[in-house]
Amino acid sequence: MKRTLGTCYYPEHWDEEIWTEDARRMAELGLTWVRIGEFAWSRLEPSPGDLQLDWLDRAIDVLNDAGLSVVLGTPTATPPRWMLDKHPDMIALDADGKPRGFGSRRHYCFSHAGFRAESQRITRIIAERFGHKVAAWQTDNEYGCHDTVISYSDAARLAFQDWLQARYGTVDALNTAWGNVFWSMDYDRFDQIGLPNLTVTEPNPAHAQAFRRFSSDQVVAFNREQVDEIRAHSTAPISHNYMGRVTDFDHFAVGKDLEIATWDSYPLGFLEDRVGASPEHQRAFARQGDPDFQAFHHDLYRAVGRGRWWVMEQQPGPVNWAPHNPAPLPGMVRLWTWEALAHGAEAVCYFRWRQAPFAQEQLHSGLLRPDSAEAPAMLEARQVASEIQNAPDVSIPRADVGLIFDYDADWAWSVQPHGAELSYFGLVLDHYRALRRAGLNVDILSPDTQDFSGYKIVLAPGLMHLTDELRAALAQTEAHVVYGPRTGARDADFKMPVPLPPAIAGLDVTVARLESLRPDSPIPLAGGGAVQGYLEEFETTATPMFTREDGQPIVVTDGNRTYNGGWLDDIGMDRLVAQLCETANITTRTLPNGIRIRRTETEEFWFNHCAEAVKTEIGTLAPASVTRRII
Amino acid sequence: MKRTLGTCYYPEHWDEEIWTEDARRMAELGLTWVRIGEFAWSRLEPSPGDLQLDWLDRAIDVLNDAGLSVVLGTPTATPPRWMLDKHPDMIALDADGKPRGFGSRRHYCFSHAGFRAESQRITRIIAERFGHKVAAWQTDNEYGCHDTVISYSDAARLAFQDWLQARYGTVDALNTAWGNVFWSMDYDRFDQIGLPNLTVTEPNPAHAQAFRRFSSDQVVAFNREQVDEIRAHSTAPISHNYMGRVTDFDHFAVGKDLEIATWDSYPLGFLEDRVGASPEHQRAFARQGDPDFQAFHHDLYRAVGRGRWWVMEQQPGPVNWAPHNPAPLPGMVRLWTWEALAHGAEAVCYFRWRQAPFAQEQLHSGLLRPDSAEAPAMLEARQVASEIQNAPDVSIPRADVGLIFDYDADWAWSVQPHGAELSYFGLVLDHYRALRRAGLNVDILSPDTQDFSGYKIVLAPGLMHLTDELRAALAQTEAHVVYGPRTGARDADFKMPVPLPPAIAGLDVTVARLESLRPDSPIPLAGGGAVQGYLEEFETTATPMFTREDGQPIVVTDGNRTYNGGWLDDIGMDRLVAQLCETANITTRTLPNGIRIRRTETEEFWFNHCAEAVKTEIGTLAPASVTRRII
Amino acid sequence: MKRTLGTCYYPEHWDEEIWTEDARRMAELGLTWVRIGEFAWSRLEPSPGDLQLDWLDRAIDVLNDAGLSVVLGTPTATPPRWMLDKHPDMIALDADGKPRGFGSRRHYCFSHAGFRAESQRITRIIAERFGHKVAAWQTDNEYGCHDTVISYSDAARLAFQDWLQARYGTVDALNTAWGNVFWSMDYDRFDQIGLPNLTVTEPNPAHAQAFRRFSSDQVVAFNREQVDEIRAHSTAPISHNYMGRVTDFDHFAVGKDLEIATWDSYPLGFLEDRVGASPEHQRAFARQGDPDFQAFHHDLYRAVGRGRWWVMEQQPGPVNWAPHNPAPLPGMVRLWTWEALAHGAEAVCYFRWRQAPFAQEQLHSGLLRPDSAEAPAMLEARQVASEIQNAPDVSIPRADVGLIFDYDADWAWSVQPHGAELSYFGLVLDHYRALRRAGLNVDILSPDTQDFSGYKIVLAPGLMHLTDELRAALAQTEAHVVYGPRTGARDADFKMPVPLPPAIAGLDVTVARLESLRPDSPIPLAGGGAVQGYLEEFETTATPMFTREDGQPIVVTDGNRTYNGGWLDDIGMDRLVAQLCETANITTRTLPNGIRIRRTETEEFWFNHCAEAVKTEIGTLAPASVTRRII
Ligand SMILES: [Zn+2]
Ligand SMILES: [Zn+2]
Ligand SMILES: [Zn+2]
Repeated sequence: MKRTLGTCYYPEHWDEEIWTEDARRMAELGLTWVRIGEFAWSRLEPSPGDLQLDWLDRAIDVLNDAGLSVVLGTPTATPPRWMLDKHPDMIALDADGKPRGFGSRRHYCFSHAGFRAESQRITRIIAERFGHKVAAWQTDNEYGCHDTVISYSDAARLAFQDWLQARYGTVDALNTAWGNVFWSMDYDRFDQIGLPNLTVTEPNPAHAQAFRRFSSDQVVAFNREQVDEIRAHSTAPISHNYMGRVTDFDHFAVGKDLEIATWDSYPLGFLEDRVGASPEHQRAFARQGDPDFQAFHHDLYRAVGRGRWWVMEQQPGPVNWAPHNPAPLPGMVRLWTWEALAHGAEAVCYFRWRQAPFAQEQLHSGLLRPDSAEAPAMLEARQVASEIQNAPDVSIPRADVGLIFDYDADWAWSVQPHGAELSYFGLVLDHYRALRRAGLNVDILSPDTQDFSGYKIVLAPGLMHLTDELRAALAQTEAHVVYGPRTGARDADFKMPVPLPPAIAGLDVTVARLESLRPDSPIPLAGGGAVQGYLEEFETTATPMFTREDGQPIVVTDGNRTYNGGWLDDIGMDRLVAQLCETANITTRTLPNGIRIRRTETEEFWFNHCAEAVKTEIGTLAPASVTRRII
Repeated sequence: MKRTLGTCYYPEHWDEEIWTEDARRMAELGLTWVRIGEFAWSRLEPSPGDLQLDWLDRAIDVLNDAGLSVVLGTPTATPPRWMLDKHPDMIALDADGKPRGFGSRRHYCFSHAGFRAESQRITRIIAERFGHKVAAWQTDNEYGCHDTVISYSDAARLAFQDWLQARYGTVDALNTAWGNVFWSMDYDRFDQIGLPNLTVTEPNPAHAQAFRRFSSDQVVAFNREQVDEIRAHSTAPISHNYMGRVTDFDHFAVGKDLEIATWDSYPLGFLEDRVGASPEHQRAFARQGDPDFQAFHHDLYRAVGRGRWWVMEQQPGPVNWAPHNPAPLPGMVRLWTWEALAHGAEAVCYFRWRQAPFAQEQLHSGLLRPDSAEAPAMLEARQVASEIQNAPDVSIPRADVGLIFDYDADWAWSVQPHGAELSYFGLVLDHYRALRRAGLNVDILSPDTQDFSGYKIVLAPGLMHLTDELRAALAQTEAHVVYGPRTGARDADFKMPVPLPPAIAGLDVTVARLESLRPDSPIPLAGGGAVQGYLEEFETTATPMFTREDGQPIVVTDGNRTYNGGWLDDIGMDRLVAQLCETANITTRTLPNGIRIRRTETEEFWFNHCAEAVKTEIGTLAPASVTRRII
Repeated sequence: MKRTLGTCYYPEHWDEEIWTEDARRMAELGLTWVRIGEFAWSRLEPSPGDLQLDWLDRAIDVLNDAGLSVVLGTPTATPPRWMLDKHPDMIALDADGKPRGFGSRRHYCFSHAGFRAESQRITRIIAERFGHKVAAWQTDNEYGCHDTVISYSDAARLAFQDWLQARYGTVDALNTAWGNVFWSMDYDRFDQIGLPNLTVTEPNPAHAQAFRRFSSDQVVAFNREQVDEIRAHSTAPISHNYMGRVTDFDHFAVGKDLEIATWDSYPLGFLEDRVGASPEHQRAFARQGDPDFQAFHHDLYRAVGRGRWWVMEQQPGPVNWAPHNPAPLPGMVRLWTWEALAHGAEAVCYFRWRQAPFAQEQLHSGLLRPDSAEAPAMLEARQVASEIQNAPDVSIPRADVGLIFDYDADWAWSVQPHGAELSYFGLVLDHYRALRRAGLNVDILSPDTQDFSGYKIVLAPGLMHLTDELRAALAQTEAHVVYGPRTGARDADFKMPVPLPPAIAGLDVTVARLESLRPDSPIPLAGGGAVQGYLEEFETTATPMFTREDGQPIVVTDGNRTYNGGWLDDIGMDRLVAQLCETANITTRTLPNGIRIRRTETEEFWFNHCAEAVKTEIGTLAPASVTRRII
């Protein structure tokens, strides 16, 4: 595979006269890809049925003529204002019942049939017209950004009732599955079932989880409708650009309908608004971004795209939307780009070509300033473009360690966190960080994985509902599997199973009791480290691997099956990884804070995410630097 | 009085086959009581008028046959879904005007006439059918839990207007009483008076306080309607299970219509979500609960029940609903049980018999695990059951010190706290804590108390409106009465009286000015301690008991009447208690942190609420331990 | 000019029998002015058209007979309840769409035509009846208090559409000006344009800023309608009482229609709820108020009133509305009064004469207590009254330093702060504080200022949109002008200009990039001090005045033009002021913390805002003291 670069461009924002010059400069910079069109609906169809596609045709021609390949987005993330005249009820409602109206973007409910038809129609029109001349497609833009998966509209309520009827058949079956007897919550008819908002106290978690699954399914269906339209007219591969830490829908399920997964990587914005790190960490990495958060997403989308993935939007300078928007350290744009490529990205596209001097993102940097002068990122992009020219083809090896990531588990933890600070995403990220501190490549794995062969270790933390298929697949693998905490804690309908969880074949452990902990009250482990936030007590005959200071087991093991009943802190997690890797004959390192490694088949990359030079075994690494070594 | 134990059981949650075995195990454990039925409406009346009572009859028989006595709850806290079809407007609205709909529990507005009729109807049906075979009754469940006393619905608005008309007669009288001239808030007709929400800035406090009183009256009336139905068919005593720190309605007023007061005691959950202690205190007592909060409620409900009171729900392990849900230290379930018994509880019932593996409380522990194995609390319950078998009859003495608790004052402080952190409940609890640190028994007293004979000291802090009756009763008692701060600060309609407060017969003190303080700015007292949060300045000829360092009086006294113009910190409060007790010839101790004492006529209990052993005058007390000494 | 005192009085709150005695006591105290009537609508017109003006006539007579001059307020801040029966839709909606209803005050939307007509009608009636016998007028009361400028009602939406049509002519022009192409936000018709609330993510800043300007214009128009009615019947000067740190409408624009600007000064309440100081600062000055916040407003309203300004409401003791409401230190009421007079106030009126024992402000002190005894402030007011009797006429000199304050810039920063903590008001206040620490008099200047002659230094921080007129005026002045940060960053329609800002004639500096900083991450300056929160990077050939430690310029200068690209901390700001003043030959001091100076033509005032005595060059100043020196 050859590595490529690209950018995101909005011809509709600029005078047509400068398109050619822009295209020339892109090509000269060494870019391959230009993504366009995803917000242009009001210019493609200024009034209902009045299609104005010629300008887009000309823009594609200009880009193609300059040797650039075009990724064309369907414009459904920004329905025009007239659409609201036709479908006033197409908007989502928030959990308080407030409308989420026109005036920015993503103002639609995934369950609204009228808008779904409009989405198919405009996709069909565009696919017909441009299907032969674009190199790739993007559906919509950043599904779920701005909390737009979950809608409490009437359209959503009616669709949810249908979804429940399809799943449960009878309302009695639903009542039984959900345990609605508990507080006389029994329903007589499906049409009585509301959405799980605006209840006096918390709704039945079975109700809430069902709604989360329904909401995700609506995104998948919406996306598939666009895919079907495109496929009818184009053979170019189809992608969607996922957004960082948006977990409200199942990316694996959407990804199954697509050829390529892409994601939008804004390291500095993310560290400020969604990583969830401590203020000290946020301060130390304010101009570099979190050392693991992007890598985690790279590995995630490599899995979602079944190997084919891109960064569709790469932060090139300060953004406009975080609580604080500093500039990256010099070198970081290059580092971020190479990091994505090292994890196997086919392409990295900078967002955006030229900073827009108007509207919501006027303080979002581009490769060019609003006055068309080069912004600092241009220099680094140019350097990477030159470096990849000279780099060999790349091939991504299977990692020794697989880490399962399950969107359903994320919803389950969010429906029932048990402790105020607990989240599934956080738990998995903590595992991922520990693996990275040990210098390991990691593969993120879908919970649909059936064949784990090739992995020495598979980590499966926090899978609150373990499907029969995954349970069986994990039972059969020869890899060392680490389960828990909360493995199999709920059945398919959010009931606690009896016999009690986790009920793992070949590992005698039962969760007799569980508790959540105050953040100021971790439980020390014998030998170092601690459990924080969440803790289980066992009945077990398995071998203790880690115990509390009072001898109670926290992590137990039997053969190549391990169950971990606690949320370990960093020291505990490092000890766990070290011990597992030693058993599995995997070589580990102890990397300094902010130093990370990634290996392809032929290269070893050392990334220094720190603002200072750091001494390592391969020498002193400059701040914000990438070191590529052929291996 | 003989002490007894019990549990809360939900036969409708379990296969009928295991009822008998459950009952056998309860009896074998040594339980006397089983509360049932309070959430079962959808199974008692699956559709309107379709009564299915036989199963409950069988369940009661099974329990009675095992020698257990049944407390039957009316199921009105969980109206079935079909009720909403009949009465869509029966739900409450929150202060923002948002509906508080179906999907959990307590989804009704106390002012809705249609639901009130349904509540009477189902109560009548149940009382008729089961009136002869249950040993006690419970009305509804936890009035006011989840902030459900106050509703901003249309039903509430209309009922409020009627309530105002009944109270004031004419709208002119209301305008005058409230001072509506102030901002041209005069009304022309009662039907113009809205609820005091959604105003531009704060509403007239007279308006707000009237609404708080109305809202409480609605609870009292609702409860009385059920009581009347039950009394017509049963001679068994009637109770209600109040919830910790729910002060939105007058428990004394509800209690007057009942034979027994009960409350639901969740020490660990409460410390996390409502005690209001510092993080350090929360951490230190995270597995034991606050050392005074439960005792305060025990003494409160002894007063509300006029001597007859229970703990209807006792936490047996981790709960599911607090921000963090740790397990209790071994010994605490026994300690909590004995503490309640030491304060005079007739019965302590563990909530719940078996942990439910479904619905909202699936992470709420029971005596049994979901798989019917014994949870850790079972051991401690068994120990207490054995201990009370061997304990003599108990009799509760009158305390030397009475502490008045007035719900109306709590509303008044909440309507007009003057300082952001100030609450009446907190003020009274601070007094109570100091009395307990001094090793004293305390009686909580209703503001309707007319005869204070037998008390050496009566504390009456924070009574913003002092009724004529209470004023007279306090004036006549021979006990030493400690008034203030804010005593008599408002008349019956929330006006400030002129002459200025407190206007206490026999004590020359006038509050010339008052202020609230930043939490970081306490005012030191001469001799130790400080005033925090709230402070009054006096015109007085009375004798200063405590002064500021500049000599200004804070606490003044004349004979056996004392007025306290400040919210004292712990040191100040300890000094006040010590001085009052010395004068009143009451022996005090200075108990170590976390050690508390309680005396019955024949016993002295020492409770160590600490996680560590503590040295005391009676020896070293083990962590989480109860020491019972015959005196 | 002779200095005067006054008070705010509500004859409608008190029995008519005590009016005469009240008036006598006012006169005896030495007061000149009494403001009345501004909340009395329900008593002036108890039902629609039923005018009851006689009592007010008698009240005015009583006051006039005692030698007092009356300021009469129009009562439009408190429409009576019957008005809502006539115009149910006259209320404002908040950003969530919730009504802001009856029950307190300011319950009207400035865009409601029906209420606007009522406002004109009652103003006309009052002006006709009392125009000949009052000495001054006040329109309404505290426009914008309780966030009442901005309304999301239908009335506002329709009026906004008209306003946009008037401004832009065609919807195409609007689409182009706002860059609506960005996210397909193009409109087809003006009637499609909603208010910029309830959007999925942030609205177009051009949209938001237009709405802010429209909202301000509505206040100006509303006020002008009252002014027109008054002018038709009275020659007395007209004022409005602005509220501290209410910046939601353009006070300069309202002020142009008035003769006198007044404001309501509550130093202790403001320090608690709106100054934005650190907790340490809040604690240190809790009983004195911020040392600069009032002075800033004094200087601001001297500008708004074009020299004629008052304090219409002066805090006399604890207020009722802040999170904490301490009493002022003895001496502070006198200090505050003299401070206002030193800044040129014609009058200082204490709010209120007698503390009201009823309704919302029953804990707001007055000069009298509710029982008519003297409150502590009375003593200090009496002292000031005596002192001003003996003081000479006063004349206010032009300051050496002018500081531009632009409401439009405040809205722009609030629409697009870029960093979570950044506000224009805070930026200007930080400049003002530094000037005051240097012992300087400051003139606040309107952005409409065309002639800066007489000023040695003009500071123009943060003017995000620089009008052509102001740009030209600044270009021409001989004063040293200090621009930035963010100068001219947006055009009249919130687009970023190209060529890039600031584009200052005679100063070669271009903002190449900008960023916002975490509060924990200031950027040190070479030589001391730091940039905090906001930072620009330059392309420049101008002379660096301040640089970062790495040599990058932060403040650059050329001749008498300086551009500052960072938000300087206190040390940086002090260095900037010192250097500018040295260049401009202005003598500065370095005043101790809490000591402030103000000079009139003949006097130098030293104010000690500290709770402790402070040594200064003129000797040790007692706590909370004023020292007046003739110069
Ligand atoms: Zn994006
Ligand atoms: Zn309960
Ligand atoms: Zn005011």
